Amino acid sequence: MKPATAQKRIEGVLAPVITPFRRDLSPDVDRFVKHCRWLMRSGCAGLAVFGTNSEANSMAVEEKLELLEALVTGGVPAASLMPGTGHCALTDSVKMTREAVRMGCGGVLMLPPFYYKGVSDEGLFRNFSEVIERVGDERLRVYLYHIPPVSNVPITLELIERLLTRYPGVVAGAKDSSGDWSNTKAMLDRFKDRGFDVFPGSEVFLLDGLRAGGKGCITATGNVNPGPISDVFRNFRSAEADKLQAGITATRKIVQKVPMIPALKAITAHFGNDPEWKRLRPPLVELSAEQEKQVVTELRAAGFSMPSLG
Amino acid sequence: MKPATAQKRIEGVLAPVITPFRRDLSPDVDRFVKHCRWLMRSGCAGLAVFGTNSEANSMAVEEKLELLEALVTGGVPAASLMPGTGHCALTDSVKMTREAVRMGCGGVLMLPPFYYKGVSDEGLFRNFSEVIERVGDERLRVYLYHIPPVSNVPITLELIERLLTRYPGVVAGAKDSSGDWSNTKAMLDRFKDRGFDVFPGSEVFLLDGLRAGGKGCITATGNVNPGPISDVFRNFRSAEADKLQAGITATRKIVQKVPMIPALKAITAHFGNDPEWKRLRPPLVELSAEQEKQVVTELRAAGFSMPSLG
Repeated sequence: MKPATAQKRIEGVLAPVITPFRRDLSPDVDRFVKHCRWLMRSGCAGLAVFGTNSEANSMAVEEKLELLEALVTGGVPAASLMPGTGHCALTDSVKMTREAVRMGCGGVLMLPPFYYKGVSDEGLFRNFSEVIERVGDERLRVYLYHIPPVSNVPITLELIERLLTRYPGVVAGAKDSSGDWSNTKAMLDRFKDRGFDVFPGSEVFLLDGLRAGGKGCITATGNVNPGPISDVFRNFRSAEADKLQAGITATRKIVQKVPMIPALKAITAHFGNDPEWKRLRPPLVELSAEQEKQVVTELRAAGFSMPSLG
Repeated sequence: MKPATAQKRIEGVLAPVITPFRRDLSPDVDRFVKHCRWLMRSGCAGLAVFGTNSEANSMAVEEKLELLEALVTGGVPAASLMPGTGHCALTDSVKMTREAVRMGCGGVLMLPPFYYKGVSDEGLFRNFSEVIERVGDERLRVYLYHIPPVSNVPITLELIERLLTRYPGVVAGAKDSSGDWSNTKAMLDRFKDRGFDVFPGSEVFLLDGLRAGGKGCITATGNVNPGPISDVFRNFRSAEADKLQAGITATRKIVQKVPMIPALKAITAHFGNDPEWKRLRPPLVELSAEQEKQVVTELRAAGFSMPSLG
């Protein structure tokens, strides 16, 4: 493989984009592209499509590739895209990663294979290594996806060390969705000066992360609150920063009182006046009427809005 | 969907067949078919290809379909096949299940979608229901795969009740790999007289299971010890049954002292004199030399062999 060349990295707030489904549960391509364009207009620096909040693992590789192609042809800059490409099956990860690079995506966000639990760092190293070697393209930028509460398969600091040493430039960073600031801080302290960009998995840690050398955040709530979250990123050195952070943290806390993924869809449906957004693929289910009423009422009371959506 | 018609169900010992990989990690079709034919000659009543021990989730749908097609055209009776067809992605589960039915498989062993944790029974019901409705074929026999130590997503008794009530005849049974006999017993007591066939996920529970109304077992060790395990099934009402059970339990205990999946491959490689079998796909790794030596030495000391293999 040729060495990596210098290339502008994605920095700022990324939304792990929720995926709309039609009545027959097929991905709704047009609604998806529209939402992505709104997110980019509203402050997002990039889009981590096909993440946990995207119900990515509930879709086949071909369905995701169709959505990705539609985004790129639909005018969303490929350089701002960081699609999820990590699957349980090595061959699926390779296929999806190769296509993402071919389309010019700025990076890929890669889950470890997550079926087997208690696997060794050696096994995970081999997985990422095989994908990188098979794709074999100097444009590839891999962001490792650490989300132990869901995947149950952690990306350890030792694994990062080994991958970064072997593939500098290609292994470009991580999303840390552990919810454990001490882990995010440890990632930052150890790797931030080695071309490894750390993105906390929640805007709750955005300001702390930026002050410790992080590059932004990749956050669920970025789907519905991209403007104010991006304001923290743009103003993090200003006197207003802590106040802006307090505002987005307060909004986050309202949203996460109910199950996050159906909440994001219910909020988008409500504030965008488009009930089609509420639908989820099994095994996820929509919010109950009570949950929906709660989150909408509390957001309204807090002055929340989604400007120019719908 | 048309009602299910009477059809002979799979009963006895099934092996969740290990999958051989070539040097480039592609599935080794010929070796796979050869091993499957050996298992059927050696006492297996059926083959649960594409299970946990098969590294099924480490393969793409297309790779599995190629293997399944090769088995059927290679002379393994489709009626004895119970391929794993449950994926995280609804559309993958539908595709794989539809093809299995089209090829005439006796049943399918279906994992729940396993990425999201803590999902509701309602969400899981919708998943299985969508697959059954979309396949829409009266020949479909679904065996639910309960393996909480790996999937982290349990199949509860309440979920079985609901599925069995809605799809009698199609929902045909379960593999219980919880390792918790009290759960297996509860499944048997509640559902065994309602056309729901329970298979413990280890031969350690084979005799207890048969005495409580079970239909056999689907067990990892069936890959290497099919003859003696099948002897317990065939002789479970005889005076020899407990002694036969003690023998297969002793063998199992030797094997499971080391990681199971690489152990099965190392044993097959050693006793079949075919080192190609040792290879695994990431994230799994082969046994260490010490582990391999330990399991082989202890099996030899116990008089273990794999007759007519290799």
